[in-house]
Parts: sequence; C-alpha cells; structure tokens
Amino acid sequence: MKTDMKAVYRCIECGAVYKIEPERMLCASCSALQRADEPLRGLLEVEYDGRLPADWDIFHFLPVEPEYFPPIPVGHTPLWKPENLRKETGFPELYLKDDGSNPTGSFKDRASFLVAAFARKHGIRDIVVASTGNAGSSMAGVGAAAGLNVRLYLPESAPEAKLVQSLQYGAQLIRVKGNYDEAYKQSMEYVSTHGGLSRNTAHNPLTIEGKKTVSLEIYRQLGKKLPDFLFVSVGDGVIISGVYKGLDDLHRQGLIERIPTVIAVQAEGSSAISRALSHGEFQPPVPASTIADSISVDVPKGGYFALKKLREHKGEAVTVSDKEILRAQHTLARSCGLFTEPAGAAAAAGFFKLREKLSSKAVYAVLLTGSGLKDIASARKGVMG
Amino acid sequence: MKTDMKAVYRCIECGAVYKIEPERMLCASCSALQRADEPLRGLLEVEYDGRLPADWDIFHFLPVEPEYFPPIPVGHTPLWKPENLRKETGFPELYLKDDGSNPTGSFKDRASFLVAAFARKHGIRDIVVASTGNAGSSMAGVGAAAGLNVRLYLPESAPEAKLVQSLQYGAQLIRVKGNYDEAYKQSMEYVSTHGGLSRNTAHNPLTIEGKKTVSLEIYRQLGKKLPDFLFVSVGDGVIISGVYKGLDDLHRQGLIERIPTVIAVQAEGSSAISRALSHGEFQPPVPASTIADSISVDVPKGGYFALKKLREHKGEAVTVSDKEILRAQHTLARSCGLFTEPAGAAAAAGFFKLREKLSSKAVYAVLLTGSGLKDIASARKGVMG
Repeated sequence: MKTDMKAVYRCIECGAVYKIEPERMLCASCSALQRADEPLRGLLEVEYDGRLPADWDIFHFLPVEPEYFPPIPVGHTPLWKPENLRKETGFPELYLKDDGSNPTGSFKDRASFLVAAFARKHGIRDIVVASTGNAGSSMAGVGAAAGLNVRLYLPESAPEAKLVQSLQYGAQLIRVKGNYDEAYKQSMEYVSTHGGLSRNTAHNPLTIEGKKTVSLEIYRQLGKKLPDFLFVSVGDGVIISGVYKGLDDLHRQGLIERIPTVIAVQAEGSSAISRALSHGEFQPPVPASTIADSISVDVPKGGYFALKKLREHKGEAVTVSDKEILRAQHTLARSCGLFTEPAGAAAAAGFFKLREKLSSKAVYAVLLTGSGLKDIASARKGVMG
Repeated sequence: MKTDMKAVYRCIECGAVYKIEPERMLCASCSALQRADEPLRGLLEVEYDGRLPADWDIFHFLPVEPEYFPPIPVGHTPLWKPENLRKETGFPELYLKDDGSNPTGSFKDRASFLVAAFARKHGIRDIVVASTGNAGSSMAGVGAAAGLNVRLYLPESAPEAKLVQSLQYGAQLIRVKGNYDEAYKQSMEYVSTHGGLSRNTAHNPLTIEGKKTVSLEIYRQLGKKLPDFLFVSVGDGVIISGVYKGLDDLHRQGLIERIPTVIAVQAEGSSAISRALSHGEFQPPVPASTIADSISVDVPKGGYFALKKLREHKGEAVTVSDKEILRAQHTLARSCGLFTEPAGAAAAAGFFKLREKLSSKAVYAVLLTGSGLKDIASARKGVMG
C-alpha cells in the first residue's frame, strides 16, 4: 500500500504552493481578493510529485493513508451497460455510472470519505458543513462511520428525506432561515469562533480531491481506458472539478494520452457556469430555480476551478429544462431500471438533447449522482403530474 | 461458465419431483389440500444433482444460464465491518450485510433477478406480482432492465416512495382496495384469465431460489466461511427460506460442515412464524400491525418452508417491538452510517435484544433488507417523534 507520492496544495490562480494541513483551505493572497457574489477565490488543487507504482489502487492516488479511512463502503459504484437504452438511442457504447448506490445514496460520499479520513489523521473530532441536502447527509453518514461529530447547517427548504437521513446519522442540525448562501455564512462563522474542520464544498480542497475518484474508477472499470465523452450535471461546479482533477491526474501519470470531452449539463434555471463559459467570465448572479435541488445554486462556489478546467480541456456546456430533466429521469427508470434523482437525470437529459449531433461510434459515460429515493416529491411529478 | 448441475423442483411436503418450467408453481397434490388462512401448501424447492466446479461462481448455483440475466447489478452487496458498533456492543466479529444497496434499494432484487432471467429464457413477456411495496418496486425495476412488462397489484396503504418508484420504472399499477391478501387474490385471478408469469413471493419457487444468493455471497465474502449466527427479519418467511436454501446448498455440496444458527426476528405485531415455531403449527391468523411494513403480514405465504427449515436446523425466533425497531434503526445509522428501513432494522433489534445471552467470541451477521430512504415517514418517527 505504500507509495512515494508526495502531495502539496497549489493555488489554481497564482500557483502558490502550500502544505496540506487542516488550517489551510484557500490561497492566502488570492482569497483576499474575494468579491461578494462571485465564486470562491484562491481554490487549491492537490498536486502530486512522484510516480504511481504499476499495481496502483485508488488509495495511492489520495493524500491520506488508507488506514485513516472509515469502515464504510464508499465508491466502487457500478458502471451499467444499459442494453435497452443503447438500442433505443442507437449508442452501443453508452455507460451509466450510478453513484446513487453509495452508502448515503449520493456521489457526495466521495468527498466526505476523504475529508473524514483527513480529520482522523489529524485528530480532529468536529466537522462543520453547510448543505442544500446531499453533502450534509453524506457527511453525517460518513462522519458517523468515522466516529466524528458533524454540525450541519441546512436551509429550511431542504427536502424531507435528506433532513431525516441526517438526523438518523446523528448529525447536529441547524435549520437556517434563508438559502444555501446564508447557511454557508453561518457555518463559516461557527468555524472561526468555535473551530472544527470545514467540509464546505470547494472551500475544503479535499472535497474536489475526493470526488476525482470517480474518474479513476471509470478508467479501471473500462479496462484502463476512458470514454470519449463524459456527461456531468453541474451546480456549484465541484463535481465536474473533481471529475477533471481525476482525468488530469491520470494524464500527468502518463496513463491516458488525451483528456475526454466533458459536457457540463446545467439546469436552465441554474446555469452560472454555462453562462460564464460562453461569456468568458462570471456574470452577476441570478436567483436559481430548478426541480433538481442538488444543482440549484446562485453563485457556484467551485466556479473558477470548473471554468479553468473546462477551458483548458475544451469542455462544453448545455442547459436542460426541468421538463427535460423529469423526462430523462423516467426514461432511465423505465428502460434501464435505474432510478436517479433529478440532478443525476439532468446529465442524461444533456446526452439526450445533444445526441443527434454525436457520433454513435464513440464511447459515452453519463454520471448519475444520487438515488431517486432521495426526492420522491419530484419523481412523483414526473409520473403522476 | 458451464456446469453439469441439473436442477428439478421437489415438493417440500410430499417429495414429489417436477420439471422446472413456467407452468409449474406448486405441488399439484399438496396444493390441492390448501385451506383458507394458512400459508401456501405444496411449496417447491430447487434441487441440484451434480458437483459444482472448483472455481464456481453464483451463476453455477442457479437454475437459469448466465446469459439470460438482465443488465442490472443485483447482489454483490457490501458486508460491513462496523467498527464503532463492534466496540459499543463488545462483539468484535459482528458483520452487517447491506442489501439496501441493491439497484431498487431492496433485498427483493435477488428474487426479481432470477425470475426475470427465467422469463427471458422462456420467451415470457409479462410478469404479474402482488406486493406491499418492495417486491413490486423491485420487480418493476429489474423487469425494466429485462425489457419485461410488469403488472403490479399494490394495496392502497403502500408507502408513497415504493409506489412512485414503481411508476418510474414503468410498471402497470393496479391499486387495490384492501390488504395484501386481496392484492394477491386479484393478481392470481389475472394470471389465470390473461396469463403472464406470477412473481408472487413463495408461490413462484424461484423467489426463494433467487434469495438464497445472499448466503452464497456471505460465504465468499468471509473467505469460504459462514458466521456462527445469522439474524434475519421475517414477515412472509420467504427471505429466511432463501437464506436457509443457500446454506443447505453449500452444505450438500460439502462446502460447509454445519449450518449456522439462524435467528428469525419478527415484529411483535406480526409474528405468525415465531408463534408457529413455539406451538408446533400455524395458529389462526391475527391482523398484523407494525411500523415495519415490509414484514407486516397476517398469513405468511412462505410459512411452511420457513418453519420446516427452522425446525430441521434448530433455528430460533425472537420478537421485537416497534420501539425497539426504531431504536435499532437509529443506532445503526448513528454508529455505522448505515441507514436501513424498519424491516431491516428489526434484525438488528433482535441481535441487540439477545446480545446479553450471546458469546462475544462467535461470528455474527445481521441481514439488512432495504434502504432507509424507502420509508422516510417511519424514519422520521425514530428521530423527530
């Protein structure tokens, strides 16, 4: 299990290098330039020095040693070969990566898993997180397995299932009058006054680093290859940042020759990153509105990381309507038996929307980020009106 | 993948042998003796003739060839090593088998998977099933992956999530005024008039055979060993029948020396099999009432199979209250990060209840049968009163 890979944090804006330690979240100089209403400035990326051993596994590629990870089976989610959907769409090499089968039913477990391991390594007992739902219930669940105390700031609008789930996991819940931004603000105030490790998405660089594991898994599941196109739903930009981070790491190690084309799929009513990609920079925020609560954000915290990678690697963006999201959800369920939440279905909706322009000879993977059981009220609208 | 294992059906009551074919569900002579208000008579067990190859996998041990199984990742669910719970309880070799991580969030996928494969092998397009929720949504999901039409009879009391999930999977839903027994009756009338394959639990012998795979998996996950004690929640008796069938098959093949002690855990308000075990025979039915909807049954359809196995192998039974079930659910979530539905938590409640009488040196596995996300209303009661 040992490797000679050394890791540091590097600022994605100015290139400054920092030690990976609990006190370090953002680049000191770039975060000082933070303006209100823009994505977080001074995000840090984990950078490795050294070569992976030939028989590497995913733990070799993370900045925390395997023994600190809690006993909860995160990741290694199935890559489906959806026979019926392949026939219906005429794409014989279409894959679905079902991250709803993670322990708490969400992709977010990948980030929580690494953050929990990091906390255990450094003897930290308290984790603080603001969340619209999935990140919070994920941290609560993974934190429970790790024996950590989780303090969760949740907007009052969070779906019932995610709230009940977090309470079941024993999280200390603070219901916030206001939206995610207000919850985020309160959580940061708490950390600066009382301490504890922030697991706020993008703010803690390990959230991006943990999420990269999905790219490593797909690479291994396809027999050391990657799809030509990856469809990823995008809200705050942290999942797509993680996906790209995994691709970059594989590329830097010489394991792949080129980076796949990543398609960022956003809801029409929550499309800050898509707009920034076409305008060249982030526009003034618009209040978000979409049925896909997990990707509904006014200001995407991980926006600069996501935008940088999309530009560097010529990624693309597409927006889909709530109607298209609900239709895609039902299509996946009735043709494959895969029931995913609206935010996951959005990625499939993007694939369906672009499909006439795509070559049926290429290899495609669609990332499905959460279980449909997490939001029954929305799923109900898709089949009962 | 080929094996020389031959399979037939054998009646568990009279020993009569039948060919495994779609028209055959029960023993002709024993089912003719069926009285109202007793479990199904003339249940059939799959019996194999021949030796497994040394490098067997689970498909070698099923009566349908691998190529007929639909492309949906059923089974291979994680066996958790719950570090915190082991410490809290003082049982260092306690395992949790999380079948809530199956594609539709339920153990029932194991049965649906085999039934779907069997239907495909025989060119059958229509499946009919009555269900209180999980078996129906499972058959709907697995059936969708298999390209089958699923006709589902659901009592009006079924939880919202299971209903919405089934509609998402494209099942044809018939809401029945009345309980499961009425739904079962209507589904059987439909089959006799219009045809289609019954996936009714216990009635179709392959439901038991499919469920046995959990025992085979645990055997492999523990390095070709089995736990000393297995805790299984029991409603209609079909899951425990499947668990025992797997154990018997391993034993008949000489792969294990003795059958573990299986503890049947029932809700106090739905304890027909437990009462039969202590009285020696099934008692007149009592209307069931428990928060654990998946194990709430008046007359357990698979009762005779379960009772026979429990007697033969000296299994035991214990009942738990709804309060104990809800407490166990919360304990698993907050100490392990494993959120299971009340029926799954019942098995853990049984373990907690008996734990003072058990040796901490033995190996224990608790079977958790469904995701907590399937019944948020009940989980809410456990943490919000």
